[in-house]
Amino acid sequence: MNTTDRFYNAACHIWEQYYSHPFIKGMGDGSLEISKFRYFMLQDYLYLFEYAKVFAFGVTKAHDHEILRIFSKSIDDILNEEMEIHKSYMARIGISERDILNVKPALNNISYTSYMLAESERGGIADITAAILACSWSYAKIGKYLAEDKKNTEHEFFGQWIDGYAGEVFQSNNIMLMNLMNRLTENISEAEYKRLETIFVNCSKYELEFWNMAWEGEPDNA
Amino acid sequence: MNTTDRFYNAACHIWEQYYSHPFIKGMGDGSLEISKFRYFMLQDYLYLFEYAKVFAFGVTKAHDHEILRIFSKSIDDILNEEMEIHKSYMARIGISERDILNVKPALNNISYTSYMLAESERGGIADITAAILACSWSYAKIGKYLAEDKKNTEHEFFGQWIDGYAGEVFQSNNIMLMNLMNRLTENISEAEYKRLETIFVNCSKYELEFWNMAWEGEPDNA
Amino acid sequence: MNTTDRFYNAACHIWEQYYSHPFIKGMGDGSLEISKFRYFMLQDYLYLFEYAKVFAFGVTKAHDHEILRIFSKSIDDILNEEMEIHKSYMARIGISERDILNVKPALNNISYTSYMLAESERGGIADITAAILACSWSYAKIGKYLAEDKKNTEHEFFGQWIDGYAGEVFQSNNIMLMNLMNRLTENISEAEYKRLETIFVNCSKYELEFWNMAWEGEPDNA
Amino acid sequence: MNTTDRFYNAACHIWEQYYSHPFIKGMGDGSLEISKFRYFMLQDYLYLFEYAKVFAFGVTKAHDHEILRIFSKSIDDILNEEMEIHKSYMARIGISERDILNVKPALNNISYTSYMLAESERGGIADITAAILACSWSYAKIGKYLAEDKKNTEHEFFGQWIDGYAGEVFQSNNIMLMNLMNRLTENISEAEYKRLETIFVNCSKYELEFWNMAWEGEPDNA
Repeated sequence: MNTTDRFYNAACHIWEQYYSHPFIKGMGDGSLEISKFRYFMLQDYLYLFEYAKVFAFGVTKAHDHEILRIFSKSIDDILNEEMEIHKSYMARIGISERDILNVKPALNNISYTSYMLAESERGGIADITAAILACSWSYAKIGKYLAEDKKNTEHEFFGQWIDGYAGEVFQSNNIMLMNLMNRLTENISEAEYKRLETIFVNCSKYELEFWNMAWEGEPDNA
Repeated sequence: MNTTDRFYNAACHIWEQYYSHPFIKGMGDGSLEISKFRYFMLQDYLYLFEYAKVFAFGVTKAHDHEILRIFSKSIDDILNEEMEIHKSYMARIGISERDILNVKPALNNISYTSYMLAESERGGIADITAAILACSWSYAKIGKYLAEDKKNTEHEFFGQWIDGYAGEVFQSNNIMLMNLMNRLTENISEAEYKRLETIFVNCSKYELEFWNMAWEGEPDNA
Repeated sequence: MNTTDRFYNAACHIWEQYYSHPFIKGMGDGSLEISKFRYFMLQDYLYLFEYAKVFAFGVTKAHDHEILRIFSKSIDDILNEEMEIHKSYMARIGISERDILNVKPALNNISYTSYMLAESERGGIADITAAILACSWSYAKIGKYLAEDKKNTEHEFFGQWIDGYAGEVFQSNNIMLMNLMNRLTENISEAEYKRLETIFVNCSKYELEFWNMAWEGEPDNA
Repeated sequence: MNTTDRFYNAACHIWEQYYSHPFIKGMGDGSLEISKFRYFMLQDYLYLFEYAKVFAFGVTKAHDHEILRIFSKSIDDILNEEMEIHKSYMARIGISERDILNVKPALNNISYTSYMLAESERGGIADITAAILACSWSYAKIGKYLAEDKKNTEHEFFGQWIDGYAGEVFQSNNIMLMNLMNRLTENISEAEYKRLETIFVNCSKYELEFWNMAWEGEPDNA
């Protein structure tokens, strides 16, 4: 069994909770309060800066030119393209420039990105790829799952989100990362595999905490 | 007002919750279930390895010989002394070598140490000291608070814990760190101060989460 | 006086040696042996990978979106564009794919890039920018200096090199980095300035060593 | 063949140059100018700070308690003991406190320590141990070699140096590091071995450059 299949088996009891999560179901059936979605988008916006830094650690550690390209392309995509799309999207759902300037990361958000960064700092390319993968892959799956019902993708606010992650560009980038994960782990020992699985499973848990945080919305005393 | 006073003002709404926390009150009046205390000790044992790494980042970044001594002494204290005391203490309260080998860090534990490590990696000496301080200082205060009632320090299991943190060695090490924090921040800008305050407040929140984790005990599906 | 002017004053006794260096004069008057140029290009090719990693450390440390954009754009430029130009140029001057696969970095090359990386790891954004600047700025100046004589830019082999660094894209990228350096150091203390000056002067020395290495060519026992 | 034997074979053409180096021969026969020795001691003093930081990177990356102990013990030995011995020794050979405050690291010194730090940052425990080993092991060998002639160890100035490195404490610490290197590489691939060998050989080259620097003494325009 290849690494990503083993990862999936190890994390599927967590991933199953994504599909039935009220936030994700609410995006699908359109019942999600827009204020919760706004809070999620703002936290996700902050998350993306840190996510780009994880790829940047990859650039500092890679020896292989092809891997350097993949990681550097991802940083550029996130910071110089995805961010712009995010910003125009945020404007459309009523998030002001001032909201963006004032938003503070929730503790769950900080925990997740700190974990990815700490593992990236002490680990190698495979550890970094494992840390990156839970977010990319689970969004690819959630996007595709929600897009199965064509109606979902036509929703005034959530449709664009679903389309983005279900779309070809995101899906093929994710497959590239999955292939990289499998290639990097072709000849590793079981002990090394277990370390990577732990990273992937922990990030999967943090993904679930992120959805919980989004669902609970902004705390009053934030 | 010096930096540590400002830190305290910024975090005191969190710190006040430590004293009234059922886990800490339970250590004080002896009512805490020993199984909860065992779980706490095991998680704390894992925490100490990571805490030592935060000081090690300090060594990689310090230019000043005196600061290098403080940090390197702390690493040595934690890994080559405190750990031994911890181990003999753990044996006394019925934690086996096997428990120690099998324990996995709880997600809250991972979040806290990852945050300190990520801030240490990207920050400088002052950031690292701010990250270190919430743990050291709050344990010094909790130890002293619980030791006020002499009876608490005579408890078969919790007495040694209270004595350790209320004792002179720990208290004076903590004061050394507080003085270092104030010295490092004598001429900083308000923007720099705010960054450090955020680190200290976030670590204070993670301390509260750690006590919550200890109180809830080991999850069934850990 | 702004930071870059002070930097120039501190390093100009080194920079003056660039213009009179036999390697650089040889590129100007066309007398440089092509074998020396090939060796230089191969070492420079290896250098660029590490130079991109210095910018990547910048991404891991920056908080400011604008700075993140500058650094991430630079990584992408180097790894996904400049490298391609380098490769086609190398082919034109008779460097084979096999030469590229077999080349090992010279010790002087390793020293320079290790220094930039070590300072980037322990420093902040300003340290990283100071480390980056000596290479960018001195190449901008050397390119312009050599391009003053139109004849130089028409040389079969060296003309493209001179044109590249004298050209608008490279010159304006360098000015952007100089402006960033000045902006980042507007309110720093003299002690902080001195640390940055040391980095800039050391990198200037490493630049000179790099030209010396290129002039001496590949050692027999490499 | 174990890793340290392979390392030795790969580097012995460099190591042989240590024994015949005029600086080392001069320590042996007492003919070395004391001013050169003073310069060496000052540069070595600066080197030790950075060398301690390499071990500190080891602490940030190690998972194994035993390895954490070895590295943390080494940091403490260097910063809190070896430094003191160094200082009293420096006083005895006429180096003033002011000399110590004013000394700047030579570029060769910076190159060597930056290389170790950069490899430590991007590598794992085995890379860090390979970077550490060239210094420790070559000093152990040079110390022993010079101590073979009893007369050498009685020299007013150089005798203490020779005794220190030929002595049991230093020799057994070095053997501990060699054993660690072999243990860490028991099951690695040939590609991984080659990366470590490159680090060890490069550090051996930097050792030679360090002796050259010491022999040439302080440059006039330092």
